[in-house]
Amino acid sequence: MENGDIPENANEDCPGPQSETAGKSDSCAGCPNQEACATAPKGPDPDLVAIAERMSTVKHKILVLSGKGGVGKSTFSAQLSFALAGMDHQVGLMDIDICGPSIPKMLGLEGQEIHQSNLGWSPVYVEDNLGVMSIGFMLPNSDDAVIWRGPRKNGLIKQFLKDVYWGEIDYLVVDAPPGTSDEHISIVQYLLPTGIDGAIIVTTPQEVSLIDVRKEVSFCKKVGVPVLGVVENMSGLSQPLKDVKFMKLATETGSSINVTEDVISCLRENAPELLDIVACSEVFDSSGGGAERMCREMGVPFLGKVPLDPQLCKAAEQGKSCFEDNKCLISAPALKSIIQKVVPSTVMTE
Amino acid sequence: MENGDIPENANEDCPGPQSETAGKSDSCAGCPNQEACATAPKGPDPDLVAIAERMSTVKHKILVLSGKGGVGKSTFSAQLSFALAGMDHQVGLMDIDICGPSIPKMLGLEGQEIHQSNLGWSPVYVEDNLGVMSIGFMLPNSDDAVIWRGPRKNGLIKQFLKDVYWGEIDYLVVDAPPGTSDEHISIVQYLLPTGIDGAIIVTTPQEVSLIDVRKEVSFCKKVGVPVLGVVENMSGLSQPLKDVKFMKLATETGSSINVTEDVISCLRENAPELLDIVACSEVFDSSGGGAERMCREMGVPFLGKVPLDPQLCKAAEQGKSCFEDNKCLISAPALKSIIQKVVPSTVMTE
Repeated sequence: MENGDIPENANEDCPGPQSETAGKSDSCAGCPNQEACATAPKGPDPDLVAIAERMSTVKHKILVLSGKGGVGKSTFSAQLSFALAGMDHQVGLMDIDICGPSIPKMLGLEGQEIHQSNLGWSPVYVEDNLGVMSIGFMLPNSDDAVIWRGPRKNGLIKQFLKDVYWGEIDYLVVDAPPGTSDEHISIVQYLLPTGIDGAIIVTTPQEVSLIDVRKEVSFCKKVGVPVLGVVENMSGLSQPLKDVKFMKLATETGSSINVTEDVISCLRENAPELLDIVACSEVFDSSGGGAERMCREMGVPFLGKVPLDPQLCKAAEQGKSCFEDNKCLISAPALKSIIQKVVPSTVMTE
Repeated sequence: MENGDIPENANEDCPGPQSETAGKSDSCAGCPNQEACATAPKGPDPDLVAIAERMSTVKHKILVLSGKGGVGKSTFSAQLSFALAGMDHQVGLMDIDICGPSIPKMLGLEGQEIHQSNLGWSPVYVEDNLGVMSIGFMLPNSDDAVIWRGPRKNGLIKQFLKDVYWGEIDYLVVDAPPGTSDEHISIVQYLLPTGIDGAIIVTTPQEVSLIDVRKEVSFCKKVGVPVLGVVENMSGLSQPLKDVKFMKLATETGSSINVTEDVISCLRENAPELLDIVACSEVFDSSGGGAERMCREMGVPFLGKVPLDPQLCKAAEQGKSCFEDNKCLISAPALKSIIQKVVPSTVMTE
């Protein structure tokens, strides 16, 4: 590369003003924020002491990360939390996606508000043993954009860690936004000194998504967070043939006609055994070997594949656990087997 | 809400140190960055003058935004650029997703490098009339994470606007990462004084995604960027029945058996007319009315739906235009009709 005036260390991390407390900090030469960093107060961050105190009642901390957005990371975080709570653990779920918090909806907690006690901010509880914290609970109008630059987002994340009263909990699941920027640097910087069990990285199978996952794995390695494993989500769409809609394309006009009834009655007449078959469509191209191959190449555990299951999407929309009733026939067993790998010593109860 | 020590204006924008040059800037009370802002140099940003000069040769500027990630925003940006170039326009595509740049792969430009001339940084060209700029071209190793906080990302975006030599172009398409944070505040702050035609917002149909789109629309309204319209992507998966794989679930073991050959031969024997039918699966729940209803409610144009087409995903993976051959039968006509609405005065040629 003729890198001209591109900063030579353009790819090294700039952990910002609190860099001296971060796990690892490279030189900041070339960083536009250099001056601000240099003039920032030095010395250990007193907030880290308060965070360490809060986190002393939390046994395990798991980050849920993704390279790209929209791969089902929040759905996974939500279902992981439901599953852990279903195993009778005390669980906290913290949503640090400030600009696009999906967790309140996915836990069925839309419109709820957080309350304050003398112990700090109280999470919103789905059940006695599943508490949730998200900026989504703080917005007067859920349509409003949270137009915040990095420092302000970092401030809120710090406040979540410092001021939320989780009590004695077994698991704190942290749902992060996609990428490797402010939120990620901050959560690691603040939590790493208190111990992080590791990160679960969620991806979809196509190469364009795996490119970003590799970056996420390299982020974890760089900052010293163990990778618990990678989940390949949306590995093909699977649904009973009888749930499929059938259309006939009128190629001249570009429009299409719904012929579902004709098709179903034709099948019922001629091949009724087909109605119970599951139709699988490869949505995203996984001809490159998908996440499994990427994991082998990068030396991180592959946790498994979860098919794109419209029933799971529906459970997420309704804020429900996919383990509760038997609707998520296709995705729930896959999710369960993945979660058992991460929490191996405990038997899941439903 | 008992907002305790939550900043009261937690939802107002903090355009950062350069706020005096921003389109709109509210009070920064409560912002953790307040002090740094206050000590930042005042007065108009000289870089804005340089940016205005660069942009004087660009006729139209279109931002492509999304609330959530993974909704196909970059795929849309890429295909929009291919389409505009196919209409014989001079097109520039700028990828400001610093942590997860997908554009190089989606334009078939992986491994390319940018070069420098006395006129500035040269974009990488797909064709004579389609140039591309992305941080993806600057990374020595595409697996490396770009672990940058906001200010550094803003610095690079500014440099892209200031130092890239596009020449005389008709359209500059800017592909932004999901959300409403640093990259978005910066691109608007830097480009708005030079004129932005508007933003196209890409979403998927389910409510959990639309929540974030509403935030994106409110962002555009707040900063004064016209919303050209909303595209509903992944509106159901559509593919010819003969491309579908059929599985039989062995519910006891959780495993499944591939019975595709049996099904296809059964269909061929009993109902051959079905093989040309298109199977449509609703992947994401759109029972809430999808993007169309949201657009009505928010008073912004609805541009149309694009089905989730595995062939379009494949074209994106291979860095190809979906308009080139006739493979993307299902998505290409939908995309074309959407693009014609945004660029109404020109007839698309293939």
